[in-house]
Amino acid sequence: MAHHATFHELLRAPSGAIDLGEFDPHGQPGFEDDKHAGEQALIDLGDELADLQEQLFAQRGTGDERRILLVLQGMDTSGKGGVIRHAVGLVDPQGVRITSFKAPTQEELEHDFLWRIRKAVPAPGYIGVFDRSHYEDVLVGRVRELATPEEIEHRYAAINSFEKELVDDGVILIKCMLHISADEQKERLLARLDDPTKFWKFNPGDIDERALWPAYQRAYELAIEKTNTEHAPWYVVPSDRKWFRNLAVGELLIEALRAMDLAWPEADFDVEEQKARLEHEEPLS
Amino acid sequence: MAHHATFHELLRAPSGAIDLGEFDPHGQPGFEDDKHAGEQALIDLGDELADLQEQLFAQRGTGDERRILLVLQGMDTSGKGGVIRHAVGLVDPQGVRITSFKAPTQEELEHDFLWRIRKAVPAPGYIGVFDRSHYEDVLVGRVRELATPEEIEHRYAAINSFEKELVDDGVILIKCMLHISADEQKERLLARLDDPTKFWKFNPGDIDERALWPAYQRAYELAIEKTNTEHAPWYVVPSDRKWFRNLAVGELLIEALRAMDLAWPEADFDVEEQKARLEHEEPLS
Repeated sequence: MAHHATFHELLRAPSGAIDLGEFDPHGQPGFEDDKHAGEQALIDLGDELADLQEQLFAQRGTGDERRILLVLQGMDTSGKGGVIRHAVGLVDPQGVRITSFKAPTQEELEHDFLWRIRKAVPAPGYIGVFDRSHYEDVLVGRVRELATPEEIEHRYAAINSFEKELVDDGVILIKCMLHISADEQKERLLARLDDPTKFWKFNPGDIDERALWPAYQRAYELAIEKTNTEHAPWYVVPSDRKWFRNLAVGELLIEALRAMDLAWPEADFDVEEQKARLEHEEPLS
Repeated sequence: MAHHATFHELLRAPSGAIDLGEFDPHGQPGFEDDKHAGEQALIDLGDELADLQEQLFAQRGTGDERRILLVLQGMDTSGKGGVIRHAVGLVDPQGVRITSFKAPTQEELEHDFLWRIRKAVPAPGYIGVFDRSHYEDVLVGRVRELATPEEIEHRYAAINSFEKELVDDGVILIKCMLHISADEQKERLLARLDDPTKFWKFNPGDIDERALWPAYQRAYELAIEKTNTEHAPWYVVPSDRKWFRNLAVGELLIEALRAMDLAWPEADFDVEEQKARLEHEEPLS
């Protein structure tokens, strides 16, 4: 039987220098059908995803330290929120911990840039999701010159050590760059301006950031190149088609869970003995 | 037109002394149809719940400090997890922050019992969910004599001040006691022992706790009586029927959101001006 390439294989950023211009943001690698089928394919992952997540959560009781950390990065409107709603939303919310990173507070600025990130690392058994992350410190940090070039270089190295440490502690990292085109971003921003229920998502500053598009693309290329390690790989997710983006991240998540060889933990007690206790040790009422 | 009693009215714990024996855990007040219809009724709340939650989230950008905190308490197997999965699970996970409180760690024990709770209060715009809460400190705290009777009394007062402070800061509290019968708990524990995919949820210590059922019921009665304030009311949710429990909490949540008079925020920028900028300020590529 032919080997079907996994989404991990298809979307994995290659090692070495990255040119985002070579990645088609409108593509749909690994899925040949249309939007309707793609949306259904995501929903169809739901049951297996729910079971695997519950097994991951259950195994934590056996001392298993493993957990997943999905890092979502991308330009404004690339759909970090949509991925959380549609793909992560398939999982029981009990087992998910989402953190949104905004511009750092004064307190956060007084610490190392990884300080606030460390506090949000998911505990064993959980699926953690970062809506933006420590990568902002080498993206907006670089483009807006919030740090010196030397400091940015230092941060790439600090991120690699930090992520290695996480992996050694049982964290499985899935780092996704949601890749959209500048044209698609324009359409999405215009759509926000055409719909009064979406005005709140729009900020005039978004257009100032958009003017720096090439600088941000370059910052992403460098960040991916310098932190695309074996233990913490990057995936470039074509995101001009929202349905494909959601499906692709759902598939990356389920493939990671499948690869963990999860199972329902054995009972660490005598089942029949406990049944007998339940039958005979009735509480006074 | 006849006034239909709201779930807030139907499930609100009365003021004064509470006798849980007077609350039917198998009841379904406010809903006269069967399980199938009840499950569908919950799903039917989904679209409105999603819209209201998004409006709550959007309003945070206008300086609105309001947020919701759903506190879930109940005996083992009463279904705190099921409520999160089925009712809270209807809401976009981006706008939800869930905290599960376990037995306090050594660090937590070195602080006031509200220390860890304060850190988990949801930010404006969010729906926070506490799976267990500060109430454990007057429930297991009382039953297991982890604190003196004087300290327990002090805690009721501390909880009332704390919750008043939260309400003054814009937190809308929905405190739910998921009320099951001892018989139903026995069935649910036996079901866990009959299903190898559920062994992980069972702990022999659950039967030791069960032996203290009457003491726990009494601790709940006292906790509700002493902290059932106008600003932070308690609801007793009949929970022997899982579908009714989920529906009832979903209804309590949606009623609270409806009462907030939420709306989509107005644009605080000139929409046409921003559209023109988007059309004319193209990034260099």
